[in-house]
Amino acid sequence: MSSAVSPLAPKSYPELPEVGGVRFATAQAGIKYAGRTDVLMMLFDAGADVAGVFTRSRCPSAAVDWCRDSLKGGRARALLVNSGNANAFTGRKGKEATELSARLAAAAAGCAPGEVFLASTGVIGEPLPAERFSGVVDRLAGAATAGSWQEAARAIMTTDTYPKAVSRRVKVGDTDVVLNGIAKGAGMIAPDMATMLSFLVTDAAISAPALQALLSGTVGDTFNAITIDGDTSTSDTVLLFATGAAGGARIESADDPRLADFKVALGDLMRELAQMIVKDGEGARKFVEITVTGAESDASARRIGFSIANSPLVKTAVAGEDANWGRIVMAVGKAGEPADRDRLAIWFGDVRVAVDGERDADYSEAAASAVMREEFIPVRVDLGLGEGRSTVWTCDLTKEYVAINGDYRS
Amino acid sequence: MSSAVSPLAPKSYPELPEVGGVRFATAQAGIKYAGRTDVLMMLFDAGADVAGVFTRSRCPSAAVDWCRDSLKGGRARALLVNSGNANAFTGRKGKEATELSARLAAAAAGCAPGEVFLASTGVIGEPLPAERFSGVVDRLAGAATAGSWQEAARAIMTTDTYPKAVSRRVKVGDTDVVLNGIAKGAGMIAPDMATMLSFLVTDAAISAPALQALLSGTVGDTFNAITIDGDTSTSDTVLLFATGAAGGARIESADDPRLADFKVALGDLMRELAQMIVKDGEGARKFVEITVTGAESDASARRIGFSIANSPLVKTAVAGEDANWGRIVMAVGKAGEPADRDRLAIWFGDVRVAVDGERDADYSEAAASAVMREEFIPVRVDLGLGEGRSTVWTCDLTKEYVAINGDYRS
Repeated sequence: MSSAVSPLAPKSYPELPEVGGVRFATAQAGIKYAGRTDVLMMLFDAGADVAGVFTRSRCPSAAVDWCRDSLKGGRARALLVNSGNANAFTGRKGKEATELSARLAAAAAGCAPGEVFLASTGVIGEPLPAERFSGVVDRLAGAATAGSWQEAARAIMTTDTYPKAVSRRVKVGDTDVVLNGIAKGAGMIAPDMATMLSFLVTDAAISAPALQALLSGTVGDTFNAITIDGDTSTSDTVLLFATGAAGGARIESADDPRLADFKVALGDLMRELAQMIVKDGEGARKFVEITVTGAESDASARRIGFSIANSPLVKTAVAGEDANWGRIVMAVGKAGEPADRDRLAIWFGDVRVAVDGERDADYSEAAASAVMREEFIPVRVDLGLGEGRSTVWTCDLTKEYVAINGDYRS
Repeated sequence: MSSAVSPLAPKSYPELPEVGGVRFATAQAGIKYAGRTDVLMMLFDAGADVAGVFTRSRCPSAAVDWCRDSLKGGRARALLVNSGNANAFTGRKGKEATELSARLAAAAAGCAPGEVFLASTGVIGEPLPAERFSGVVDRLAGAATAGSWQEAARAIMTTDTYPKAVSRRVKVGDTDVVLNGIAKGAGMIAPDMATMLSFLVTDAAISAPALQALLSGTVGDTFNAITIDGDTSTSDTVLLFATGAAGGARIESADDPRLADFKVALGDLMRELAQMIVKDGEGARKFVEITVTGAESDASARRIGFSIANSPLVKTAVAGEDANWGRIVMAVGKAGEPADRDRLAIWFGDVRVAVDGERDADYSEAAASAVMREEFIPVRVDLGLGEGRSTVWTCDLTKEYVAINGDYRS
């Protein structure tokens, strides 16, 4: 773990408002880390509707398997998260560890194990010593309060250098509701979720199927539009809980017009959390927004965007503050998507560096270099073929990334 | 350019035997580099049959476009290669530069421009000053001899730290023939050829269609089975020339049984050159062979192999000498190919670290770590599903890679 906080971190960490219907606490269970919290337990005493999206890895963690099962009930009473051990690729022992974790949490929360949701993040392949939760979960259930969301965000960190917690206030129909979210990264971030965990809680009254439709419809342009290293984790989990404590009529459909503002707020909050994850990418010094326009379709634009965002040569050029648009061309070319070299145009910020398949005659290297020296680097590629467009976010690839990941497990 | 030679370089650079029917020379044209050769010209005075494979980039270089055209004739009289400038994404100027280069080379060689083959490697997006070839090509044509293949290999280097030249002697029917090859890397190496150039010359008498079939059939398990950073260049070119100077009956079909030994030698030579490119990967300190077995098909095994080989987390773990098989699991999972977590087995060298979806109970961390300290690291993954298998080669991802590529253009 790197001790220095990312230069792209927020300047302050304001505490979030309380969300009715949820209380939580954190603890030091000593799963792997010493001297810091590594367990978060959330309790929904009156229950909450719940929706989830998970990694598409063919080798998902035992906790992901567990959540997929629990989600069938659509109802949550407790969430137990640990950092330091992903409980992934742990075979029969991993499954047993989830069963024991859920049984302990359920006993502490006074609910059925199927109403418990689990997430684990950290090293892959080491059996999770779930017996350490014994006692810990009872103390957590006793101590849980409306609590500090920043503390909750801290307890789930692995190589993250700062906690990620965001809030929105919005109306659902005539009811004022709160939506809070926390997330953690920071490596293995790519579409399909990576080692990304995020937990979102609202006091709005929204049914599980409606929540699921909202979440599934929002993840594509938020958490699935970021990449740090193109690697996809075994453990990615986003859970959205609705306690209904704010009152008001329960919304049963994602198409209900009373959800209009909530949808916007949810997209907004998830995008902000997703971008916070990128800004805390391992070793990141630059935040890069890649917008592809003029593609044959949005899906094609997305694939070209990720081909650029995942290119080590593009990412090292950004790290070197080098306006190396030739590598952008390379990444467009290798995407395997429709592209016409002689229609391509490329911008760094407002500086158009290439047009009609060659260097822009008016392009100023000094102006392009000035863009590259900023922390936020917008890159735009226009293919000149159609109306398809997509935006994805990534960070640069630095020596620190190599240092962090070359000496992570030991 | 890095000045230190890769620790994975060969211990010596023996001169290659002459190949009848080709002569060549190198020069300093000052395209980009100072104080080193940057142009290679080969002349086939009596002509040669020729075959080629190229990048699948949608944004190929002007030289690749030119070669694809020339290849329709199947006959070569000259090859002109420059390093320092890729003449890629240079629009109309790029096309004009290839036309001028070919015209100058053709005049010097006394042939038609359509019998000239071109390759350019280096920076993308800068117009190639082809007028600098004027005079240079005439001197080259005058000075060309049966020559030094090591010198030829040096003239085409970009970020390569050592020249790559390999030779085989073999019989075609009753005729003794020689097959020599040179190649260059070193970044942007991935399937579909990357910034890879390779030129192979034999004095065997083999028709262009037969050569093309041989080359296309061999590239998959050799040059297209390597990756350094997953990036694919605009310029990858492999050309195979047959002068026929060794005499003997001209072979018209790749299925001719007299080619049996030649086929093996060609595969062998191309594999050795491909591995030399990986061993000179930018910043590489480890050479990694990834073998995937038990997949549903060879193609599926190949995709899983590349998912592992291109994973920054796997590659940084190798750099850190960390037997982090959890990241191998992650890379298998993200490949999107059929895989069953609970049948997966993983080896580093002979050390089985995981079996049946969990850590091998008998696995010795010390033994696995000893494997990781070697320069050559064989990784094997068995999926337990079918008979599909594939082997790919890559290198580690080091801080030096970031340093080299973060400050390449400037």
